[in-house]
Amino acid sequence: MTKLDEKEIIRIFAEKLGIADLDDVAQLGRSIVFKADMLVASTDVPNGMEAWQVARKSIVSCVSDLAAKGVKPHAAMISLGMPNNCTRPYVEGLARGFAGAVKEFGVKIVGGDTNEANGLVIDCSMLGFASGKIPTRTGARPGDVVVVSGMFGFPPAGLAILMRNAAAAGAFRKQAAESVLVPKPRQRFGLALAKYFSSSIDSSDGLATSLYELASRSGVKIAIDSVPAADGVEKFAQENGLDAHELVFHGGEEYEIVATVPKSRLRQAMSAARKAGAALHVIGRVQRGAGDVFVGKKLLENRGYVHFRIR
Amino acid sequence: MTKLDEKEIIRIFAEKLGIADLDDVAQLGRSIVFKADMLVASTDVPNGMEAWQVARKSIVSCVSDLAAKGVKPHAAMISLGMPNNCTRPYVEGLARGFAGAVKEFGVKIVGGDTNEANGLVIDCSMLGFASGKIPTRTGARPGDVVVVSGMFGFPPAGLAILMRNAAAAGAFRKQAAESVLVPKPRQRFGLALAKYFSSSIDSSDGLATSLYELASRSGVKIAIDSVPAADGVEKFAQENGLDAHELVFHGGEEYEIVATVPKSRLRQAMSAARKAGAALHVIGRVQRGAGDVFVGKKLLENRGYVHFRIR
Repeated sequence: MTKLDEKEIIRIFAEKLGIADLDDVAQLGRSIVFKADMLVASTDVPNGMEAWQVARKSIVSCVSDLAAKGVKPHAAMISLGMPNNCTRPYVEGLARGFAGAVKEFGVKIVGGDTNEANGLVIDCSMLGFASGKIPTRTGARPGDVVVVSGMFGFPPAGLAILMRNAAAAGAFRKQAAESVLVPKPRQRFGLALAKYFSSSIDSSDGLATSLYELASRSGVKIAIDSVPAADGVEKFAQENGLDAHELVFHGGEEYEIVATVPKSRLRQAMSAARKAGAALHVIGRVQRGAGDVFVGKKLLENRGYVHFRIR
Repeated sequence: MTKLDEKEIIRIFAEKLGIADLDDVAQLGRSIVFKADMLVASTDVPNGMEAWQVARKSIVSCVSDLAAKGVKPHAAMISLGMPNNCTRPYVEGLARGFAGAVKEFGVKIVGGDTNEANGLVIDCSMLGFASGKIPTRTGARPGDVVVVSGMFGFPPAGLAILMRNAAAAGAFRKQAAESVLVPKPRQRFGLALAKYFSSSIDSSDGLATSLYELASRSGVKIAIDSVPAADGVEKFAQENGLDAHELVFHGGEEYEIVATVPKSRLRQAMSAARKAGAALHVIGRVQRGAGDVFVGKKLLENRGYVHFRIR
């Protein structure tokens, strides 16, 4: 009995179903954009996350996936698996979280399904509309620049704080914990800039995994020359005996957008970002290659995010 | 800590989200039809069901929901939660089941999401296109007739055979077990007849629940005067000390369509059914009332289907 990892499982399904991009956002014809994302409480819900935050997070995942493609969410279906000891206040908390997300992200929840399950599972499937071809994960070309919507390292620091009582000063503690409990998908960035992307992905599986996904699926090399470490992450890592590089590249739970932009369009993209009030950071370059990612002169480990376990 | 049942949970979500028909198929504008359905192995997968059948069943649920509205499936997303001891043959079996369902039902699987979970969970979300308003659960009117696409009782008999070793003769055993392991959604019936329906639902939660759902949501009374018991169910029930009425009305796992048709359109509907090669059975009438369902002179219990537990 071989233990299968997620990549292997995706490979089996992708092969049998003939879908190369099984886990990417799907575009049906030119207009409908479709994505589903499952939240499993035992791996995706850290200590201290309230019911409304859990419900909200299940929506955020899809909102973020669509944002990376420049697509506004339109309608969502929510399927719930709930343990039979779910209390009324918890269910009401979930419902409040969904209702809040409806307002926050302008998405309609149009239906759902409820079931008894061994642990809490929420699957959100979401539809949006596009006016043209959305960016895929395969379009990065040598000469493009690599851009991100924000800095990395807060969520893994936040997880260390929430789950393992890591030490952190007030402002950093708050910001890091918030990044885990109330993640902010980068809608403004994605909606304003997707038209400049040659490829894009949201970074919820971690920065390294996202970069490797773009590099390998596009058949290029990515060279990172400016590490997008969030303020205070280095200090936090030092004080807690952690590795800042690990937090930035292999953390995960970030809802940033990682994209490539043809050099010729970078100036326009930067101006569009300014107009939209969105930060845009150039962190590297796309070069000829075969799916590798380098940080400076060093090959980056192709390793995600290992889901944390609550118990 | 009050234990909540599924109806209560749906009520809480429906209220907070302002969606009356939370668990019905949703129609976005005039053309897009959207539904999600979650399969939880611990409650939805009986003994003896193979991996490909499990995957197929997760697709059948949505295909059946859409069929009840006269809508062909177009595209589906599959979110999987899998226990970490899932073997390669099992995963390959699931993938084969999905691939088979793609061919069988003419639906494209366009993407998915994979996760580790405590038990197997598959959420299927599905899109189809409609050319006009699809039937809801609220349109039954006094004077309509109640129709079904087939007879009831096979799946609960099949479950009793598979799960509790109930005795049954060869042909009945095979048919009953098949109805559980390889359920047939009524696409032909739904696609040919939905235009005649004033209301409709698929019966996967059981005949009684489906009738009550139409009656209560439409604000009418339903009177059943011809009990749609499948051939051999009465005999099977007798031989196994079971109640045939229970199997027919409170069994569940049937993928039949239950609908109401205005009397003035019944003749056309019957002729359309004949042309399509679909059985259509008139089993009752819609009358003025307040959500009750009668079988003959007796009030039917408003009670589903209690999910069976494997362990």
